[in-house]
Amino acid sequence: MKAEIITIGDEILIGQIIDTNSAWIAEQLNGAGVRVVQISSVQDDRDHIFNALNEAKDRADIVLITGGLGPTKDDITKETLGDYFQSNFVFNKDVFENIVRIFKPRRIPVLSVNKQQANVPDNCDILPNKYGTAPGMWFEKEGTVFVSMPGIPHEMKALVSDYVIPKIKSQFDTPIIYHKTVLTQGLGEAKLAEKIEEWRKSLGLYDIKLAFLPSVNSVRLRLSSYGGGRAEQKVIEDKIVELHEILPDLIFGYDKQTLEEVVGKLLKKKQKAISTAESCTGGNVAGRLTRISGSSAYFLGSVVSYSDAIKTDLLNVSKSDLEQHGAVSKQVVEQMALGVKKKLNTDYSIATSGIAGPTGGTDQKPVGTIWVAVATPTEVVSKMFRFGEDREINVERTVITALNLLRKQIIKPEL
Amino acid sequence: MKAEIITIGDEILIGQIIDTNSAWIAEQLNGAGVRVVQISSVQDDRDHIFNALNEAKDRADIVLITGGLGPTKDDITKETLGDYFQSNFVFNKDVFENIVRIFKPRRIPVLSVNKQQANVPDNCDILPNKYGTAPGMWFEKEGTVFVSMPGIPHEMKALVSDYVIPKIKSQFDTPIIYHKTVLTQGLGEAKLAEKIEEWRKSLGLYDIKLAFLPSVNSVRLRLSSYGGGRAEQKVIEDKIVELHEILPDLIFGYDKQTLEEVVGKLLKKKQKAISTAESCTGGNVAGRLTRISGSSAYFLGSVVSYSDAIKTDLLNVSKSDLEQHGAVSKQVVEQMALGVKKKLNTDYSIATSGIAGPTGGTDQKPVGTIWVAVATPTEVVSKMFRFGEDREINVERTVITALNLLRKQIIKPEL
Repeated sequence: MKAEIITIGDEILIGQIIDTNSAWIAEQLNGAGVRVVQISSVQDDRDHIFNALNEAKDRADIVLITGGLGPTKDDITKETLGDYFQSNFVFNKDVFENIVRIFKPRRIPVLSVNKQQANVPDNCDILPNKYGTAPGMWFEKEGTVFVSMPGIPHEMKALVSDYVIPKIKSQFDTPIIYHKTVLTQGLGEAKLAEKIEEWRKSLGLYDIKLAFLPSVNSVRLRLSSYGGGRAEQKVIEDKIVELHEILPDLIFGYDKQTLEEVVGKLLKKKQKAISTAESCTGGNVAGRLTRISGSSAYFLGSVVSYSDAIKTDLLNVSKSDLEQHGAVSKQVVEQMALGVKKKLNTDYSIATSGIAGPTGGTDQKPVGTIWVAVATPTEVVSKMFRFGEDREINVERTVITALNLLRKQIIKPEL
Repeated sequence: MKAEIITIGDEILIGQIIDTNSAWIAEQLNGAGVRVVQISSVQDDRDHIFNALNEAKDRADIVLITGGLGPTKDDITKETLGDYFQSNFVFNKDVFENIVRIFKPRRIPVLSVNKQQANVPDNCDILPNKYGTAPGMWFEKEGTVFVSMPGIPHEMKALVSDYVIPKIKSQFDTPIIYHKTVLTQGLGEAKLAEKIEEWRKSLGLYDIKLAFLPSVNSVRLRLSSYGGGRAEQKVIEDKIVELHEILPDLIFGYDKQTLEEVVGKLLKKKQKAISTAESCTGGNVAGRLTRISGSSAYFLGSVVSYSDAIKTDLLNVSKSDLEQHGAVSKQVVEQMALGVKKKLNTDYSIATSGIAGPTGGTDQKPVGTIWVAVATPTEVVSKMFRFGEDREINVERTVITALNLLRKQIIKPEL
């Protein structure tokens, strides 16, 4: 079964917003055994929307459409779909009551533009929007299903989870698509590919597809089997066991796992606490660790020491080391790690100090020079990295590198 | 002049990665007077790529293609384009030397898979990739330009900026598209629309298009004129002056400005320093402030006090207030703000304390209850918010709300 996703809105085409909805929808569809064959973003323009609907109808069994359902004049999706499906518009009491329900506790008056949202096509199923005023609409035309939803992410997500996926599963006989992604850190794409070439070739025997997905400082390996069942799932799992033998140190997790999740689980299991002392990462290591709900069980706090005075006053970094070696040095970053660990009374700590850029570099310490330290219950280790010139990427790489350095220290066998 | 963007790669269609490239490319094209009419993501599949190229050829003058140029076997774009444009492949010495140049300083051996990247179609212009091994390729077929680029963002961005946009400008006579976006915070989309309805209607006279772009805790208003010149630009600027009179307090910036940028500029201009004391935001206010290069001129540091012990020990929050009112209270958040301001010796400070969720709520303080305080040189102000149940969105809303509260305090006329 094939699906297509159409996003309507000039804001994507002029680059004002990034389309994050489509990736999320695609993931849900894949999970339900529906293969996404194309994602398209088109203009808030009647002819263009018609054209996209026609093209999608020829390729897909189900077409999910987001965007253009707002109460304002620039949103033309509902009218256009009405034309496309030759609908009459009728006032829908349930939709209107939902609008009132949403507005009442916020003490916002229901305006006439909002009330108009209760006029809906008479030849579609209405899917209730629990978080917003524009309902979802499920049309069928010449054997293809078209579902229109608002583009506001949490409204769309509730509609997909609560109505669209269950309706697809009940109306269609969907196969199983199985994906499993192995997360690696430490080798570039080409080197990794060379290392696992023999293993990769063996996947062909079982009709398993492999994709290399490089991102900032890590490479993900995605294994996929289409149209298969439990047996193919088992083969993929066995192949991953083999991969562990080929790459013993490089695999840190699977699928949507993140380093902060992996590290958090380890700390929780070992009942250890962590703190951070951050200079170049400016709070982002702490911000990343606290993305995990329940992180307060192991994350106690952080000192973001952007200025040198805070490094000496709060973290007990030696003034003379700061003067002699500079803030971006092995001496200072290790003292930061030890200082915050003591001050916040934790078992582990992470410290970062570097030149994130794009300015501030010197000949000896160019932009991208970054020190990371991890203090453990028994020692402090540190490492220098030379990243690039982009401030945002440098911060991101430092965060990932620091978390992975911590992970390796936590899992290191005790002597 | 019309453009289309095609992204090749299964990883987008299964929802594994979000396509951020297309938005960036669209923005550059718009800036060069090229209107993007469609963005499509298609599979790593020969027939599907052919189909997408054919469809785009009928709609657009220029088609920008990203992805599928990696050294590994799952990347089929180069071969497929070779078939589509009926190319012969030839070894390109410049491309090979670029590969060697990139690998040498990293001490990575040039593998045969990398060397194959130097085999390129003989009927395209090669665009040098300064950050990676796969070059850009500029084809022309039946009056349409097709440019293929790698999908790795910084490689693609350098190719677009250095070669694609200059080549478009030199080969084509492009009109001026002018966009200006007004950033507002404080009113929802419908309420804002009602407030500016008369003004909106007046835009029609000048052929200016208005779009409402709601995001987490703010609404952006985008004004666009197509095919115009300096005169239309002037009209848009005049209309924005009018808008300021209708919405005196709600506008905080323009276009791609961010609150951290606006706040940073204000602090820099007034030569004031800021610190943060963060509980529920876990370092994200600090992380946001330090996104700005040069923020060390006004941002000194932060204490992330996830545990109560850190609130009392480092921020001097009263133990009895913590016990009596709880960490999520006016008393505690104000003391956090005053505590960090004093400890880090800054002029202003921001403090946050709340229940980010999804767990940890009580009847009196449900998930989403968040206190924000701003301490100024003369006072401390605080405000409670009731956000929703999503942890990530709550943190994001708190960061934005806190920065805007700070902004309003900084620009408040002194008595």
